[in-house]
Amino acid sequence: MNFDAIKSECLAANLSLPQSGLVDLTFGNVSVADPERRVFAIKPSGVAYEKLTVDDIVVLDYEGNVLEGDLRPSSDMATHRCLLLNFHGIRSVVHTHSRAAVAFAQAGLDLPCLGTTHADYFHGHVPVTRAMTPAEIAGDYEWETGQVIVERFANIHPLAIPAVLVRNHGPFTWGPSSNKALETALALEIIADMVIKTLTINPQAISTPTHLLDKHFSRKHGPNAYYGQV
Amino acid sequence: MNFDAIKSECLAANLSLPQSGLVDLTFGNVSVADPERRVFAIKPSGVAYEKLTVDDIVVLDYEGNVLEGDLRPSSDMATHRCLLLNFHGIRSVVHTHSRAAVAFAQAGLDLPCLGTTHADYFHGHVPVTRAMTPAEIAGDYEWETGQVIVERFANIHPLAIPAVLVRNHGPFTWGPSSNKALETALALEIIADMVIKTLTINPQAISTPTHLLDKHFSRKHGPNAYYGQV
Amino acid sequence: MNFDAIKSECLAANLSLPQSGLVDLTFGNVSVADPERRVFAIKPSGVAYEKLTVDDIVVLDYEGNVLEGDLRPSSDMATHRCLLLNFHGIRSVVHTHSRAAVAFAQAGLDLPCLGTTHADYFHGHVPVTRAMTPAEIAGDYEWETGQVIVERFANIHPLAIPAVLVRNHGPFTWGPSSNKALETALALEIIADMVIKTLTINPQAISTPTHLLDKHFSRKHGPNAYYGQV
Amino acid sequence: MNFDAIKSECLAANLSLPQSGLVDLTFGNVSVADPERRVFAIKPSGVAYEKLTVDDIVVLDYEGNVLEGDLRPSSDMATHRCLLLNFHGIRSVVHTHSRAAVAFAQAGLDLPCLGTTHADYFHGHVPVTRAMTPAEIAGDYEWETGQVIVERFANIHPLAIPAVLVRNHGPFTWGPSSNKALETALALEIIADMVIKTLTINPQAISTPTHLLDKHFSRKHGPNAYYGQV
Repeated sequence: MNFDAIKSECLAANLSLPQSGLVDLTFGNVSVADPERRVFAIKPSGVAYEKLTVDDIVVLDYEGNVLEGDLRPSSDMATHRCLLLNFHGIRSVVHTHSRAAVAFAQAGLDLPCLGTTHADYFHGHVPVTRAMTPAEIAGDYEWETGQVIVERFANIHPLAIPAVLVRNHGPFTWGPSSNKALETALALEIIADMVIKTLTINPQAISTPTHLLDKHFSRKHGPNAYYGQV
Repeated sequence: MNFDAIKSECLAANLSLPQSGLVDLTFGNVSVADPERRVFAIKPSGVAYEKLTVDDIVVLDYEGNVLEGDLRPSSDMATHRCLLLNFHGIRSVVHTHSRAAVAFAQAGLDLPCLGTTHADYFHGHVPVTRAMTPAEIAGDYEWETGQVIVERFANIHPLAIPAVLVRNHGPFTWGPSSNKALETALALEIIADMVIKTLTINPQAISTPTHLLDKHFSRKHGPNAYYGQV
Repeated sequence: MNFDAIKSECLAANLSLPQSGLVDLTFGNVSVADPERRVFAIKPSGVAYEKLTVDDIVVLDYEGNVLEGDLRPSSDMATHRCLLLNFHGIRSVVHTHSRAAVAFAQAGLDLPCLGTTHADYFHGHVPVTRAMTPAEIAGDYEWETGQVIVERFANIHPLAIPAVLVRNHGPFTWGPSSNKALETALALEIIADMVIKTLTINPQAISTPTHLLDKHFSRKHGPNAYYGQV
Repeated sequence: MNFDAIKSECLAANLSLPQSGLVDLTFGNVSVADPERRVFAIKPSGVAYEKLTVDDIVVLDYEGNVLEGDLRPSSDMATHRCLLLNFHGIRSVVHTHSRAAVAFAQAGLDLPCLGTTHADYFHGHVPVTRAMTPAEIAGDYEWETGQVIVERFANIHPLAIPAVLVRNHGPFTWGPSSNKALETALALEIIADMVIKTLTINPQAISTPTHLLDKHFSRKHGPNAYYGQV
């Protein structure tokens, strides 16, 4: 099998992380899947972005076996794998420690929808996961991290709200392409920054009314979308 | 009719948005009107700034009919049209989701005048609009957005306070040229950032006394202005 | 008389303002004096920094008469003149609307000394001026602004605390050269930013004990200074 | 004796400070030691980074005697010396006035561990030192600063928590190389910024549970580490 397409897309996506301003040091990684073949490419662990080449990208199957690459995959690999397996229709997962989004993860708070910037991207609050148990942390920690995300989305469509805040950790976003998952990661950080500023001046700021949330989300998504070009 | 002048000015103004730091992703647009001919040029919807060319700019008449251009106009077009129709003496409208200004829109708070930086640009608080009704949102939403702005300015001169905060959305600014409307958008964001910092250290900070507000506004505006060169 | 030296220094100092990050749009100006000849050079009013040339710099005497230059001096000229006249040993005044320092001016709060970064530059709190009266604002406003600064320094040595926060307005700094006054303006903004962050996490943060304040100020200033090279 | 290796490493590390964004003006310095020979290199006092050359670097022995260099060492030299003498296994000390870390030092608060970004670097809260006494400040101030750090680490392993916040002053970090100590200084600032944002939206945010802290620290440190490449 030839994995050049997903490896190239994965390399480009990881290289764009430090340029986006979302990632400090090596705090971020992107995976890109080929769902039909049930394989995905991911950044190797702890390699500086400026030294990354396409040969460093690790390719695995959906069971977690390495198919190509000499380096260890990202330590967060199993979380990516869990989301790619469970969230149908997605091809890419992005993980960062972007600062404003991390603040909500550390605060243990959902990111509330306070305005149209949020409603353009997320059809409701971006949820925070529950605290993990000592057993989950002592076990297959990164896989269990994926499992608590999937649990949190039991009643949420992952393409209607393509982001989560892992408690005491940070954000994961996803989408049908790495470009879209990266755009969502950037939008999430911008929106979280806006909410911190909003709550600073009005701790009682109220969520956007449902009719405005629905209106803005449907301007950009679904059969009646009229934002952008046809 | 030839629309080259307003199309060129409109292109240049939209291209300056990402450089200004006011706009993330594609969250902003500028319109430029020729009020005598009752026509205006506006950014197309959802096109990345770096790909924008003068041929992409859409020209419409004041009734909203497209006169030139193959792309859909900005989804916010009807809000621009409403302001251009109702606010006499303006030629350009700027819309952004700049973060500190959005914070006030999301908080549902007028931007109070706390100092001379504000008074140099706005002759009083920058108002936030009322919440829109479900009927307004379900109807011609973007036009109704313009209508609630116009309603809010029933007793405010739009050139004395050339900016508004649309509740749960973000800022619009305007002026006699796109350069002036853009400068006002930047000043609004700077001032909003200053107010967030001020309220962080003193939630009871009081508004600038009227005599100081009047003094600074009149240094820059009106028959006795003495700021700048003749 | 030849004013080339102070005009060149004044031009260079004003050009450095936007690069310093202290100044947005045209919100700042620097004056440079020759105290022996009782003359000073200052930025013209409302001219963009990128268009400024040495020929645009305005030279005035200490009574406020223009000696050289075709443009209007900065509208803040009389404040500069008042400080140059009253604060002995200074040769340059810098005025900005840098955001964190403006926050204290708008909050009506002295900038408290919370640490050694502050003590390295200012021997005590940086004071905020009292509110100006309607008569002072209606009169020779910019001169009166200088007068309330001088009044506030009745019991403070202007070289021990070379900065002030004009209430509802912003900071002025000064020093024996424009380089030193600019460094002080930058240090003031950095320190104000640190204090905002400090008060965010601990509104009861207490001022640096006097013995630590004295120690750090005397490391850098006075006969026993041992910071830097001889 | 030849000191070229530590002088070169010391120069490169100091030059990287302004590029890192951690340091404003001249507020920072790095030392690099050769523990076997009991000597260390350090930045000279008050020299601008852009003018620094390898010949300006000062070399001293662990008793504080200058062995090479014509300039005065950093005024913080004795603090570096005290840490190099007392913390076994370290080769480099970094001191900055980075703004968010300074905020905790000025607030007199330990930096709490609120998430995995912190746990990846520090095995517990980053401690703040006690206030120094007037006698300590009047005496050999910089050496005593080192002593209160060492006192604070009586029951903390300096390689498990390679950073401290000196009360009313700012952060020091250390490590087995200048690159590692600089990375820790950057991580500390990022984490402090995240905590300020977290406490802004949830002043009751709770510390990371011990099992999660242990898990993340041991992913990167110790015999069972599996982050990065072998």
